[in-house]
Amino acid sequence: MYRSHSCGELRASNINETVRLSGWVHKSRNLGGMTFIDLRDRYGKTQLVFNEEVDKNLSEKAAKLGREFVIQIEGKVAERSSKNAEMLTGDVEIIVSKLIILNASLTPPFTMEDESDGGEELRMKYRYLDIRRTPVRENLIFRHKVSMEVRKYLSDQGFIDVETPYLIKSTPEGARDFVVPSRMNEGQFYALPQSPQTFKQLLMVGGMDKYFQIVKCFRDEDLRADRQPEFTQIDCEMAFVEQEDILNVFEGLTRHLLKEVKGVEFGDFPRMTFDDAMKFYGNDKPDIRFDMKFGELNDLAKNKGFNVFDQQELIVGIAVPGCAGYSRKDTDKLIDWVKRPQVGASGLVWAKVNEDGTYKSSVDKFYNQEDLAAWAERTNAKKGDLILVMSGDTNKVRAQLSALRMEMAERLGLRKADEFAPLWVIDFPLLEWDEDTNAYHAMHHPFTAPKPADVHLLDTDPGKVKANAYDLVMNGNEIGGGSIRIHDKTMQATMLRHLGFSETEAKAQFGFLMDAFEYGAPPHGGLAFGLDRLVSILGGQETIRDFIAFPKNNSGRDVMIDAPAPLDNAQLDELGLKMK
Amino acid sequence: MYRSHSCGELRASNINETVRLSGWVHKSRNLGGMTFIDLRDRYGKTQLVFNEEVDKNLSEKAAKLGREFVIQIEGKVAERSSKNAEMLTGDVEIIVSKLIILNASLTPPFTMEDESDGGEELRMKYRYLDIRRTPVRENLIFRHKVSMEVRKYLSDQGFIDVETPYLIKSTPEGARDFVVPSRMNEGQFYALPQSPQTFKQLLMVGGMDKYFQIVKCFRDEDLRADRQPEFTQIDCEMAFVEQEDILNVFEGLTRHLLKEVKGVEFGDFPRMTFDDAMKFYGNDKPDIRFDMKFGELNDLAKNKGFNVFDQQELIVGIAVPGCAGYSRKDTDKLIDWVKRPQVGASGLVWAKVNEDGTYKSSVDKFYNQEDLAAWAERTNAKKGDLILVMSGDTNKVRAQLSALRMEMAERLGLRKADEFAPLWVIDFPLLEWDEDTNAYHAMHHPFTAPKPADVHLLDTDPGKVKANAYDLVMNGNEIGGGSIRIHDKTMQATMLRHLGFSETEAKAQFGFLMDAFEYGAPPHGGLAFGLDRLVSILGGQETIRDFIAFPKNNSGRDVMIDAPAPLDNAQLDELGLKMK
Repeated sequence: MYRSHSCGELRASNINETVRLSGWVHKSRNLGGMTFIDLRDRYGKTQLVFNEEVDKNLSEKAAKLGREFVIQIEGKVAERSSKNAEMLTGDVEIIVSKLIILNASLTPPFTMEDESDGGEELRMKYRYLDIRRTPVRENLIFRHKVSMEVRKYLSDQGFIDVETPYLIKSTPEGARDFVVPSRMNEGQFYALPQSPQTFKQLLMVGGMDKYFQIVKCFRDEDLRADRQPEFTQIDCEMAFVEQEDILNVFEGLTRHLLKEVKGVEFGDFPRMTFDDAMKFYGNDKPDIRFDMKFGELNDLAKNKGFNVFDQQELIVGIAVPGCAGYSRKDTDKLIDWVKRPQVGASGLVWAKVNEDGTYKSSVDKFYNQEDLAAWAERTNAKKGDLILVMSGDTNKVRAQLSALRMEMAERLGLRKADEFAPLWVIDFPLLEWDEDTNAYHAMHHPFTAPKPADVHLLDTDPGKVKANAYDLVMNGNEIGGGSIRIHDKTMQATMLRHLGFSETEAKAQFGFLMDAFEYGAPPHGGLAFGLDRLVSILGGQETIRDFIAFPKNNSGRDVMIDAPAPLDNAQLDELGLKMK
Repeated sequence: MYRSHSCGELRASNINETVRLSGWVHKSRNLGGMTFIDLRDRYGKTQLVFNEEVDKNLSEKAAKLGREFVIQIEGKVAERSSKNAEMLTGDVEIIVSKLIILNASLTPPFTMEDESDGGEELRMKYRYLDIRRTPVRENLIFRHKVSMEVRKYLSDQGFIDVETPYLIKSTPEGARDFVVPSRMNEGQFYALPQSPQTFKQLLMVGGMDKYFQIVKCFRDEDLRADRQPEFTQIDCEMAFVEQEDILNVFEGLTRHLLKEVKGVEFGDFPRMTFDDAMKFYGNDKPDIRFDMKFGELNDLAKNKGFNVFDQQELIVGIAVPGCAGYSRKDTDKLIDWVKRPQVGASGLVWAKVNEDGTYKSSVDKFYNQEDLAAWAERTNAKKGDLILVMSGDTNKVRAQLSALRMEMAERLGLRKADEFAPLWVIDFPLLEWDEDTNAYHAMHHPFTAPKPADVHLLDTDPGKVKANAYDLVMNGNEIGGGSIRIHDKTMQATMLRHLGFSETEAKAQFGFLMDAFEYGAPPHGGLAFGLDRLVSILGGQETIRDFIAFPKNNSGRDVMIDAPAPLDNAQLDELGLKMK
């Protein structure tokens, strides 16, 4: 037996007990004949004491222990003279009588402290050491708690955890698949699932009624920051439901998580249509922890002699709270900020609402006090606020002002990690126009049903067709989304035709699903949450890597195990493959 | 809202309520102006009644509904005149007032009954219909329950569910890996994990202390019956433990499952060494639901003039209960059975223990009553039993007699699906000799530690070295296994050398693990259970396919979605690959 207690367990009530502990040497100090060691494991730290006067040999052995050595000790629990309220075990220390070195350690490449001196790349290469650090370990334990609560909640609601296959079929639609050559079926490939979408729909056709799974998904994308080629979804589907049923269940789940893992109680989540989200926040995942709602100013700002505005499709502004005091230098800097290529705006107009109720703007030449007062009303600006106005093509200017809004919130400390602002964004368009391919793409995926009332627009004005598709947004991040699905073969065929699939292609790729729809497919819908993102936001952080045990870097590499790697020629041969 | 109740919910207490149900038309009967429909969903069936005299139109519409049509109805709950005790809802029926057809169905290719008329291949192609059948659905729900209980139990014991990566590195050791070409790192490949073995060990090095995961694993093997290329493991690892700690935890888990999902209470599981399992049952996963323990007869049966036995390495027998009445024809058939190539024995000697205490054998010429009495004592044969004796090379004859033992148990109905006989098999050899490659292979895997007392044999008599490696066996099936791992770099290097790895190969493939061992790796060990097998045995069946939602066939194909499939040339190009 390696231990009678963990390193986080002993309390004053254990005083005088003989105990056995095992763990890592976290810290070691020599003080006039006494060696103090903080022994660490997952559960905490315990102070060990070696007294030279009591046992010289033992004390010398202890003094030689390096950081991260793994040891086992026996000793008596004693009251600590100077108690440490910050340690769970801070009331006691162990007077050690026996010491076994279980394993030595080289000097680790970085410290095991909460704030490590190791850079990202180094910590990833030695991820097994990084995980010893409290914040990383606690993040993984937090993730475990969230996963457990998700499963418990959904299972209690009658959802069945069904494992869907990982070796499936490639569909060259949407993102790129990772593929897996089949040795037994030479010349053929499996694909790893981008999501279990079709399988969960087939489970609904199969009468499973309520399905969930916490499941790995794969996307071979050129990685943007904070994306992983493999990621985890909370995947769900329900039969005989309307949108309202689905929103209720997953709002319940989210509320449960906020309560169980964060201790925050929530009532009904607000809802916003996609159109309103775009109009008032400039994007489909508004961060509503703070205000700064867009005010559209076309009617107020055009035809006042200011040419720049007159020519634009949309003039839109926000009121930044308490920033009327910005100097000329400050506002000039903001103008530079929006002109950076990442934002890409051509300029920025500002107007201050002074404390005395007067206005001062960068366009005073064209707009009088009354004009500016109207702007203030429209943007909901109060005394002391700074109104920032941009103009341009609707979609572009909305994206630019949204970026500025987030930046200002960041500067003002309004994006508080411990505040949670969930929001349903609903009524997404069915299709979106893709400038690259000059064609409509499915905004959600090709299995999303158009709203029945909009079906007639599919041929005449496809961009106008709305879907019963919804996203759950939290703190400006998309936590997940879903939709009511098509359950009718003819409708699915129509949809695929609109997405540019020939009948042959549709049959080859989704024939099994359309066949299934001919055998009594029930109405159904569902949703998927991104677990990595959900956990990181609940954990008050925004980097998903911090909540993944063994993440990959931005080139899709695992720098610890050094994967991917070249393959043996023999392995390639067996697969009937060669490199080009 | 599609339904106010499920089809399994209504009881006598609901009589006179107006309800709304949705589901599938399971069965339809016309009886003199009345149409009765069994409406089915996941939760049960409810009888619907349409009365021609009350509403002719509605009744005609109902009469036209085909099997598996999806409908929604409204109606009043009424007491049933002839109650059906076999149905949960058998006390009531619904007098339907409104009928909506949600989706039509073609005539399904097989019936949705418990005993379907569809063959395996047909049911797999239409798996979404097969899942509608009660036994398949209940198997999947049973699997869900087992998974939930496993997670709950382990989490309550302080285990943390940590997700390990799926895109890892290929190691051409053990079974074949499935590989995944990397587009971003051209010419390089990921591999899908055969198990998260190295990652869970790194989590122990990382101080996670107790890890578990229910995780998909992948093996590109030529599929034997009832193997799947992707399968699910309950994967666990613990730090600062000895074998005893691990056995206790997972015996506790198994006991918990037996109690929670089967209602069977168990005390301590029996344990048997690998050597005893081979000696007394002829294989390392003995089915101990029944007796027929091997009795070795060398000292009793040699040198009695029977040449066949005199020349053999091992003479060994079993006592088959109650089969002394076998006719000459019966025993001849048994001899034919053991001579089949699947068993491959050269013959079989029998001896009957008659009810009057006398003996009759196929070798009476060489063995007298006293000799046969000694055989009976050694094989524990009682009056009325049939002793079956085989001889040959030790390993071969044990395997042959083991096959015969299982066959006899099957014939006698001793392999009862609702009886559970768990057994720990311990003290496995570290290495096993592979006739094909003329070399030692790791019996468990290359990370298993030799028993400290046996380390000195590694160089002189490697086949004798035992490991702290163990399997949990249930009803003659290996449920899972594990071992105490090596946590010392030098020992790991020694082990890899013994397995034929050059130093360069060892470093290239397992360098990250051996590096990790230099930074304070704790003693650790663990185990993995095969979830598919565990669930099927707990479910009282032996075919894992029946407990997998979308299984593959013996060629590794998913016949429903028709995967694997050829890849687009463009996709191959992007990966820098071509077919040979």
